[in-house]
Amino acid sequence: MKVMGILLIIIAAFMLTSLVFAIYFHETVWPIIFSAIITAASGVTLAFVGNKHNNKNIGKREGYMIVTLTWIIISIFGSLPFILSGTIPSFTNAFFETMSGFTTTGSSILTDIESVPKNILYWRAMTHWIGGMGIIVLTVAILPFLGIGGMQLLIAEMPGIAPDKLHPRITATAKRFWGIYVILTAVEMLLLWAGEMNFFDATCHAFATMATGGFSTKNDSIAGFLPYSQYIIIVFMVLAGTNFTLHYFAFHGQIKKIFKNEEFKAYLTIIAVVTLALTFGLIIMQNEGLENAFRDSLFTVVSILTTTGFVTADYILWPVYLWILIAALMFIGGSAGSTGGGVKIIRHLLLLRNSWIELKRTIHPAAIIPVKYGKKSISQQVIFNVMAFFLIYILIFSFGVIAMALLGLDFETSVGASIASLGNIGPGIGGVGPIENYALIPPTGKWILSLLMLLGRLELFTVLIILSPAFWRK
Amino acid sequence: MKVMGILLIIIAAFMLTSLVFAIYFHETVWPIIFSAIITAASGVTLAFVGNKHNNKNIGKREGYMIVTLTWIIISIFGSLPFILSGTIPSFTNAFFETMSGFTTTGSSILTDIESVPKNILYWRAMTHWIGGMGIIVLTVAILPFLGIGGMQLLIAEMPGIAPDKLHPRITATAKRFWGIYVILTAVEMLLLWAGEMNFFDATCHAFATMATGGFSTKNDSIAGFLPYSQYIIIVFMVLAGTNFTLHYFAFHGQIKKIFKNEEFKAYLTIIAVVTLALTFGLIIMQNEGLENAFRDSLFTVVSILTTTGFVTADYILWPVYLWILIAALMFIGGSAGSTGGGVKIIRHLLLLRNSWIELKRTIHPAAIIPVKYGKKSISQQVIFNVMAFFLIYILIFSFGVIAMALLGLDFETSVGASIASLGNIGPGIGGVGPIENYALIPPTGKWILSLLMLLGRLELFTVLIILSPAFWRK
Repeated sequence: MKVMGILLIIIAAFMLTSLVFAIYFHETVWPIIFSAIITAASGVTLAFVGNKHNNKNIGKREGYMIVTLTWIIISIFGSLPFILSGTIPSFTNAFFETMSGFTTTGSSILTDIESVPKNILYWRAMTHWIGGMGIIVLTVAILPFLGIGGMQLLIAEMPGIAPDKLHPRITATAKRFWGIYVILTAVEMLLLWAGEMNFFDATCHAFATMATGGFSTKNDSIAGFLPYSQYIIIVFMVLAGTNFTLHYFAFHGQIKKIFKNEEFKAYLTIIAVVTLALTFGLIIMQNEGLENAFRDSLFTVVSILTTTGFVTADYILWPVYLWILIAALMFIGGSAGSTGGGVKIIRHLLLLRNSWIELKRTIHPAAIIPVKYGKKSISQQVIFNVMAFFLIYILIFSFGVIAMALLGLDFETSVGASIASLGNIGPGIGGVGPIENYALIPPTGKWILSLLMLLGRLELFTVLIILSPAFWRK
Repeated sequence: MKVMGILLIIIAAFMLTSLVFAIYFHETVWPIIFSAIITAASGVTLAFVGNKHNNKNIGKREGYMIVTLTWIIISIFGSLPFILSGTIPSFTNAFFETMSGFTTTGSSILTDIESVPKNILYWRAMTHWIGGMGIIVLTVAILPFLGIGGMQLLIAEMPGIAPDKLHPRITATAKRFWGIYVILTAVEMLLLWAGEMNFFDATCHAFATMATGGFSTKNDSIAGFLPYSQYIIIVFMVLAGTNFTLHYFAFHGQIKKIFKNEEFKAYLTIIAVVTLALTFGLIIMQNEGLENAFRDSLFTVVSILTTTGFVTADYILWPVYLWILIAALMFIGGSAGSTGGGVKIIRHLLLLRNSWIELKRTIHPAAIIPVKYGKKSISQQVIFNVMAFFLIYILIFSFGVIAMALLGLDFETSVGASIASLGNIGPGIGGVGPIENYALIPPTGKWILSLLMLLGRLELFTVLIILSPAFWRK
């Protein structure tokens, strides 16, 4: 309670930064002020109550609980500005939009984004940015400690993090990575501002890019901006989808280490290969110009792979043999240790290698043939974790598809909504394609998709564990 | 070569049984006679050449090779009657149809089945029946010996089979199960014949049912037959999708053992639950009568779950929230040790239990918590095998979807064709739905789907291993 109380007070402080734009654009300041007061008051109360039962022994169980509850509670309070400003009067819709923000998904129920007050749009982008901050701490410091789905792999790569001691290192690591996050956001903002974007648009898009979120301030997302802005956003989406450890190496001049990283190499390879295929496809089949085809392909591939979800082209209008490649990317996700969501590239690498090796093992059942990553042998236990993670991912995805279909959505839309939510991408295929939104999904569907976003963002186990009886047993 | 030579001679003998119907229906006998002569002559040559290099040491490597090559070679020779009779002039189409037959898939490229000579339709049903026979030996005797994807689990349940000694037991087990297979086929044939079917239709449908194949002699599959025949086929589809060990128990009066089998209980539960849901759905939403709704639901559920693929209703015309349940069944499959294809229910049981237990393991990483099946603890190694199997299954399914989409099929059809082929079902969703066929798939697509059928039928590894360099290394 104390932890969450403090977090709510921080959220309230972030909310108040919206006032800058409310005042600048001569918009009403009360929705933000009231939201911040309610949030801060609740935070103070929680922290006060929690302080009475002060207990420094935060163990794994409390860890799962705090992380999951945090995302839920900040999504409840974070929806206040949308509700109080009248932008999104329904709580279901406002919660969906805020959960989509904090999980850096970027799915929206807004049909006319440009009619929304600027300060509310800023808060919407801010939910992404806060979510991205949370994810960085989570993936580099908390999840490995909680033993979630092979994330302990990351630890070995990280400078100065011991897997079993959370507390002494968390502040140092978090600060280091937040520093990188803030610098990259600031640089992107300045570069976008130097182009045709105004200060407001540049800020919001920088927030949404670095968090791999995808909320834009425009109805047509990034499509209306000049190629300059699009290329800037592409570069920063790629950076946001990269393991932040590599940025740390880069800041310390250890460039060799970066290009030895197998996940990073796979990441760049996937982007290059799919972009090339799509560019050719668009030129030959759709008769597009080279630069246009290349830019649309690269933007779409990077946006979907990093799970950002910004849009410059309506890929659903491309023939199925082109957008099927985009749909395939939705199941891959960004790099581990980035703000990107999804299954993550490193897990796919390990699974593919293990599948290959499993054939060898079948021929030689007595031999012990480990999976290699980098120059290390990965233990069977970690591979087991990763396999279990992926199977549960597929299981939840399937439940999502069936649930959406039972609610009456067509097959493509059900598949698209399920993977776009679970993978924290935003746009899917079918009726939730790049230029569509989630307004028409029935309320039950919005709650289910919110749960999928939460599950995907918190690497499944953090949430699922709380639902298991073993968690509640002493 | 010797083994395959002998098998070809047996295939030729089975071919000749078609002459009964050719003569009875006054059809030309030459296509079958020529096909049988070519097949037998090739078989004798192979056996003769192979006999020179007589080597009794058939090991695991030779096992994978023989099994995979057998299915390919009998599909080549088995397509002769279709080609020589002029029914299917193109080799691609004839091979697809025959592979679909021998893998007990039941996907067809024929658009007017009733115009095909009866003796050729009989041969078409016979490919199913021979395929079913092959599968029984394969799953109960050969695959466990080859160490494929957790199939060693079956062994523990089987009376008198040792996992590491193939030769002494294979004949006994095969004979025992073939006996059950022949008896059940004969009983079904007689029961169907006692209804409105003639001898020819009863024989062909009994062949296709017990092999969980799905080739019918009618253009509208089973839809035109009376409810009596439909219920008989339902009962025998259920029996064909059951582990043959349980039939063995039944013949020996050990009924208790049957209802203690967890896979069997799960199998019946899935059928009951989905049938109930669909029956309600059809009555309320589609305004169908109770008996009709129940029969269509039960028939469809059993037909898809057992991977037979017979059809009484065009489920694609049902709303998506009803057929999505059918689509979900496509990923489950029949029981291990049955003639049914797909992932198999026992694998799903183990995966679900392991996922559940993985949550416990995350909370208590030091504790060793095994997955239980029956009253036994299943080793981590077997679970590892099963997980790897399922992941490779999903990987191949995904490649299938992407390949079909790249060939220009729409999304639903790509998904449907891929899972219906890999799962050896027959009808899928979209353009390869229950009343459609595979005639319009481009030739490349037919070869890819043939490969998927082969992979699915031989439990993936048997085929994949041959493609791995480790297999060819001394």
